[in-house]
Amino acid sequence: MTATLETATTEYIDVPGARLAYRRIGHRSARKLVLLQHFTGTMDAWDPAVVNALAEVSEVYVLDNAGVGASSGTTPDNVDEMATHAEAFIEALGLGEVDLLGFSLGGFLAQVMAVRRRVTIGRMIIAGSAPMGGEEHLLEVVGAAFEKNASDVRLPLFFTPSDKSQAAGMAFIKRAFSRTSDRDPDNGNFVSAPQATAIIDWCARSDPDHQSLKAIETTTLIVHGSDDTMFPASNAYVMFKNMPDATLILYPDSGHGAIFQQPEAFVAHVKTFLEV
Amino acid sequence: MTATLETATTEYIDVPGARLAYRRIGHRSARKLVLLQHFTGTMDAWDPAVVNALAEVSEVYVLDNAGVGASSGTTPDNVDEMATHAEAFIEALGLGEVDLLGFSLGGFLAQVMAVRRRVTIGRMIIAGSAPMGGEEHLLEVVGAAFEKNASDVRLPLFFTPSDKSQAAGMAFIKRAFSRTSDRDPDNGNFVSAPQATAIIDWCARSDPDHQSLKAIETTTLIVHGSDDTMFPASNAYVMFKNMPDATLILYPDSGHGAIFQQPEAFVAHVKTFLEV
Repeated sequence: MTATLETATTEYIDVPGARLAYRRIGHRSARKLVLLQHFTGTMDAWDPAVVNALAEVSEVYVLDNAGVGASSGTTPDNVDEMATHAEAFIEALGLGEVDLLGFSLGGFLAQVMAVRRRVTIGRMIIAGSAPMGGEEHLLEVVGAAFEKNASDVRLPLFFTPSDKSQAAGMAFIKRAFSRTSDRDPDNGNFVSAPQATAIIDWCARSDPDHQSLKAIETTTLIVHGSDDTMFPASNAYVMFKNMPDATLILYPDSGHGAIFQQPEAFVAHVKTFLEV
Repeated sequence: MTATLETATTEYIDVPGARLAYRRIGHRSARKLVLLQHFTGTMDAWDPAVVNALAEVSEVYVLDNAGVGASSGTTPDNVDEMATHAEAFIEALGLGEVDLLGFSLGGFLAQVMAVRRRVTIGRMIIAGSAPMGGEEHLLEVVGAAFEKNASDVRLPLFFTPSDKSQAAGMAFIKRAFSRTSDRDPDNGNFVSAPQATAIIDWCARSDPDHQSLKAIETTTLIVHGSDDTMFPASNAYVMFKNMPDATLILYPDSGHGAIFQQPEAFVAHVKTFLEV
């Protein structure tokens, strides 16, 4: 039986400074897709509807980066070191050329990895993210979301207040809990504090004339929600305008979790991007 | 045999003020897609690679609007009257609910039709277009393109100077000439002069707070090239930001003819939009 996000066994690989937990989803394939996760997210925070569908065209890897979830090590307080762990993961597993899907904070890592090219990246998808020096409202938005006392903080954090978006959010939350055994342990402040520092510092960094974006030669798909309150959609437009080879897709009535709100459309767009 | 853009017979239908030439491509289908053409374009200016592929999921109609190509009548000098002719075409053929694909000037017509809702529109795609009050550089860009004395003026007008874009442009031009019999007659000043007036006036109109865009309830896909010199991509971003239910896709290294530069990706995006 092919492993799904819900059924894949958690495996471990040693990299400098950490033993990283990961799961491999889908058939063995020449095309490999590594997923880089958002602020405080573990492997279990991915959407099975997205991951399992992408596994039809790629061998998909999810991981907990250093210090996160089931991985050992210390969560770094900066994006560069997080990217170093992700690169070490790809090298330790001997994956060769990989595609990347970086969501939010994971999109920062993908940008760093594409600029410094220590590992070979085929194509990459950057979702709900921001460029170096981009606009972020992390602390206000996370604080406001927790104050709502929703059944899951991702409902106010990832989805818009519209009935349609909230209904899609509840469907996503249900999917994200469909794995019942061997779930990742929850993260505490040892993850959220340094990750918040890393995000805020990344967006506070100066990148005159967007030189970092201009240095990204990787063919890239940028996707973003119209009403992302954490990282406004203007970040995605700036990335598109300054990256040499990027396609931009913006979704209507959607927030930070746009890729989980309409998984069918997002998956179709990724498949078109990878295959056409 | 199923009619293609290259083989479909030209038919005619009477509407108030004109006998309109049209062609029907693909199988009979409940889903109908009406294509609204760009400045000075006839039915023969569409890309067979786009039209024939879209005809796999819809019954596709191309037409020459009043005064254009093989149609009789006078080309209006304003978008509203052009839209009236297109509406009359849909009503005269008894098409019922239709989807629209409006390219450039055709996208202006689609916006007018979506706001006033005289005909029932399912979904619409607006490509390389601009909102009322948008930014246009029609005369400069067309003038500069003709000065280049290219083998086809659409090479400098629709494609970027990059080798990749120009090569895609030459492939498009070749496809656009693959119909050999019963081609539309070329248009003269009786088409280009009033159409230019219509375009310039549309972009000079004031639309405070984008009320026209906000009134469009139709689910819409907006696509645009990164380096469209006639209608800059910022027009598409403005439309996305102000329309209640629009998805935006921007293509890299592409100009006004972005949808003909990468027909496979564009067709895949339209199919995802219509079917997901």
